[in-house]
Amino acid sequence: MAIALDGMGGDFAPQIPVKGAVLAAQEFNEKIYLIGPENILKKELEKYSYPTSLIEIVDAPDIVTMDEKPSVALRKKKKSSIHIGAKLVKDNLADAFVSAGNTGAVMAICTFILKILPGISRPAITAILPNLKHKTVLLDVGANVDCKSRYLVEFALMGEAYARYALNLNPPKVGILNVGEEKTKGNELTKDTYKLLEELKKHGFPFFGNAEGRDVYSGKFDVIVCDGFVGNVALKMSESLAKIVLKILKEEIQKSFLGKLGSIFLRSAFKNFKKRTDYAQWGGAPLLGLNYPVIIAHGSSNEIAIKNAILRAKEFKSASVNDHILENVEKYIPILKELL
Amino acid sequence: MAIALDGMGGDFAPQIPVKGAVLAAQEFNEKIYLIGPENILKKELEKYSYPTSLIEIVDAPDIVTMDEKPSVALRKKKKSSIHIGAKLVKDNLADAFVSAGNTGAVMAICTFILKILPGISRPAITAILPNLKHKTVLLDVGANVDCKSRYLVEFALMGEAYARYALNLNPPKVGILNVGEEKTKGNELTKDTYKLLEELKKHGFPFFGNAEGRDVYSGKFDVIVCDGFVGNVALKMSESLAKIVLKILKEEIQKSFLGKLGSIFLRSAFKNFKKRTDYAQWGGAPLLGLNYPVIIAHGSSNEIAIKNAILRAKEFKSASVNDHILENVEKYIPILKELL
Repeated sequence: MAIALDGMGGDFAPQIPVKGAVLAAQEFNEKIYLIGPENILKKELEKYSYPTSLIEIVDAPDIVTMDEKPSVALRKKKKSSIHIGAKLVKDNLADAFVSAGNTGAVMAICTFILKILPGISRPAITAILPNLKHKTVLLDVGANVDCKSRYLVEFALMGEAYARYALNLNPPKVGILNVGEEKTKGNELTKDTYKLLEELKKHGFPFFGNAEGRDVYSGKFDVIVCDGFVGNVALKMSESLAKIVLKILKEEIQKSFLGKLGSIFLRSAFKNFKKRTDYAQWGGAPLLGLNYPVIIAHGSSNEIAIKNAILRAKEFKSASVNDHILENVEKYIPILKELL
Repeated sequence: MAIALDGMGGDFAPQIPVKGAVLAAQEFNEKIYLIGPENILKKELEKYSYPTSLIEIVDAPDIVTMDEKPSVALRKKKKSSIHIGAKLVKDNLADAFVSAGNTGAVMAICTFILKILPGISRPAITAILPNLKHKTVLLDVGANVDCKSRYLVEFALMGEAYARYALNLNPPKVGILNVGEEKTKGNELTKDTYKLLEELKKHGFPFFGNAEGRDVYSGKFDVIVCDGFVGNVALKMSESLAKIVLKILKEEIQKSFLGKLGSIFLRSAFKNFKKRTDYAQWGGAPLLGLNYPVIIAHGSSNEIAIKNAILRAKEFKSASVNDHILENVEKYIPILKELL
């Protein structure tokens, strides 16, 4: 297997992507195409020792900044690391593309080059979140801010395939993010989506009803679908809340001598806690719905996150998630034909 | 001042509301009308010693359960504690109504009896959340799942008045909950709302642009408006995440002997942490947009939360929040006349 990695993606490029590539090469024994301006990446890569046959720099002179307009990046920077990376995958030279770059640009360019899976309307950014039992697959978390019920049904089909085959949750419990559990609750979008997924349930789709906000971290559902606006806001709110909870707790601990003393004994607990909840331990969000695997890593990723995003890309490919998405589409979309 | 308290509201009624009333009477020296079936409340109240002149039971024989349909509660249970409580306020026998009961029923019945403020389209449930600096006023968190931009503008006017006069944030920074900071980001609703609030900014309204999910707890904004679907999901997700973060941390601490030892020294830190973040310390969410103050407490409120919800009701009334909402409506809505 070979992974194409955006060497210029993220807030700390090229240092962090290069470091992540080195870690991945050392650990996974897979080929990595490191993409970006050749001279910059070469200089950075020279700092490390690694299995040299496993990392190959592919030149991509254009640079897409983190705040660049996606439409501009798409049209005016055709030699960017995102364009070249996606093309490597499209040309079957690499099996998957990983980027911590400008999310909008990655989405736009990858959608343009890799094209959407047949039967799917829109790709979806898919967050894999820790919950009390295993993982919650939450999609969409930002690709589509105004959604139709058909999109949410497709998100359900894609999320189900990902959870079942990449995460081995079999069968995964699929729900709709909503303000209440009852069928009658919610806005027009969720009520319409409920009816459609209820129909699919009769044909075997593992739809388990409405999920409330609290269910995202409880483990009651394995896959939760929502429009990208709600998903994005909720995800960002969670990320900041988790940080703030720890910050306040640490402030309180530092206030007292006994607390300070206690915290010495707690170091390993805090460390393990961080490991269980740290974003970097997971690495990246699959962009589901394109013809080839793409993983979007957080802009603020560290090298561990990049390495793990590469691991996610490997899983995405080796679990044949896209084939299983297509199976779901072929099985379930015809049932809804009259209703969509 | 006199507060009408729903004696039958919440998951643990009548015990918790009665206990909350007793605490409030002991602490605030204000009259409390405790509303519900007289025999039930009397029996419960007899367990406590309190300034007897301060708590008066008002009989309301009908019981609205926590999962009752709001429309049924509104039409078929006209002698419920919610109906009688709202009427006491309407008849100026009490200054504000507090309930931890069925949120939908409280909203429906209070809106029916107390009526919406002139110039306002819909009432909004308003969460007051802790942030790193002081408080974030987030509305709507569940009353209106499908919103128009006009509603969000009205939420901004109401939230601004509440933050300025009840929370003394002067001037409060008002933002729109969105997926990005730029004006062009978001869905149709937020983009339309942005244009309207930008117009009001020219006339002095303290609009500070788009807030992202992470800003809810950062303190960068004092008032954040959103539709009730997004607000509800995000709020419930936060509540559960905060619990889970602590649960995982405690699990990790319990795993090691040193951790257990350390945790003994940390008790006061955890206690202070809980105090700073605990929902009960705040008490309740103002239902903004009606002619009289209403506070909705969490269904799972304990007696401290009920007592504090009564404090919030007092603040709501004494800060004349409704008069200031009307000032905002009179000042700003005519400016938008052509645009709405």
